[in-house]
Amino acid sequence: MSSQASNNIPSRRAHLPEPSLRRLPWYLAFLTTLRHEHVEHVSSTRIAAEVGVEASQIAKDLSFLDIRGKTRIGYEVAALETALRSFLGFDEPHNGIIVGVGSLGSALMADRGLQRYGLDIVAGFDINPQLIGTVVASRPVYPMERLAEICRTWEVAIAAVTVPVENAQTVADAIMDAGVRAIWNFTPCRIRVRDGVAVQNTSIYSHLAVMYNRLYNPGT
Amino acid sequence: MSSQASNNIPSRRAHLPEPSLRRLPWYLAFLTTLRHEHVEHVSSTRIAAEVGVEASQIAKDLSFLDIRGKTRIGYEVAALETALRSFLGFDEPHNGIIVGVGSLGSALMADRGLQRYGLDIVAGFDINPQLIGTVVASRPVYPMERLAEICRTWEVAIAAVTVPVENAQTVADAIMDAGVRAIWNFTPCRIRVRDGVAVQNTSIYSHLAVMYNRLYNPGT
Repeated sequence: MSSQASNNIPSRRAHLPEPSLRRLPWYLAFLTTLRHEHVEHVSSTRIAAEVGVEASQIAKDLSFLDIRGKTRIGYEVAALETALRSFLGFDEPHNGIIVGVGSLGSALMADRGLQRYGLDIVAGFDINPQLIGTVVASRPVYPMERLAEICRTWEVAIAAVTVPVENAQTVADAIMDAGVRAIWNFTPCRIRVRDGVAVQNTSIYSHLAVMYNRLYNPGT
Repeated sequence: MSSQASNNIPSRRAHLPEPSLRRLPWYLAFLTTLRHEHVEHVSSTRIAAEVGVEASQIAKDLSFLDIRGKTRIGYEVAALETALRSFLGFDEPHNGIIVGVGSLGSALMADRGLQRYGLDIVAGFDINPQLIGTVVASRPVYPMERLAEICRTWEVAIAAVTVPVENAQTVADAIMDAGVRAIWNFTPCRIRVRDGVAVQNTSIYSHLAVMYNRLYNPGT
């Protein structure tokens, strides 16, 4: 329950509720846009109007950061942007691996955007002998047998799972055995994780289903 | 309000609540796994245990499909899998475009997984003269000026937005002007859409924030 407010460094110790954590990047995105427009100050009311979240909720979400808006002036755009990036962990390098170097997996290995958000992909893993030993986006592809060793060596924090759905749980088990504590699940499989292991589901194809349904139902 | 139950073709006319639409692909993923294991029948209780959703909720979600489980035997795995794929629109081709052929955009153009879920990317668009006229994953990259023309010609259903956050709204407006009715927003920007336009937010980098926070807070 300790706070680091005194030295103005945002405390990452706070365990935020997931909805708050998902909203913070929206505010960050809007602040980046404002900075590009050379806007210096912004009120929570203005952020609220832009991102479609109540101003009171925004003030609450931002209260986790040790930064305060000023009456009538609001938040300083550049300072809030920096504090948010830092609080979210985007400005600090984390090592990650990709398990399953198929189409989506190799696409993620090539995506330099991850690095801008603090995730360095250090290696890929696959069971396909034709992929093992190759290099994708300057990163080596290893056999699954070397998972634990590489994860230890590189102190891997996050493992992305981009294997076919029928292999997702087996791969997740191997990742947990290798000591990795965060699994980024890109499959629509509901992965079961052990205590203390975080799992984040990013099933991009599932989102297609929502859009198709809305297309078949115009105006509803 | 018409139903096509009589000829056993799942009706896509039903406007499903988004939570149901997001759960259906989980069931589909589990059915695919079962089919790989040569399992022929499955109960909603078994699906419930696997995906972590109440059996009653599953029965309700599946009631939108014109397929019924049998007492004591449950659902036929292969039939339910086929019906779900069809209901979700995954077995029908839809044309899509990628606006913003940067790192994530070109990764998505190269991802053949989208095609397996019914989305054919027919072209990319960008403002960068060095990208315009190039070919990414066998698909041409056009200037933004040709957006409306290409969308009309190809009857584009879905446009993915993978531009920097400060350009997201401008690009979304151009997409809507081009007559596209579904926007797949990969930026953390909250895009404002007009009536009758569907927007789906897939802000993959935001998910990193949740995992980082959980890593900083082990055991909470």
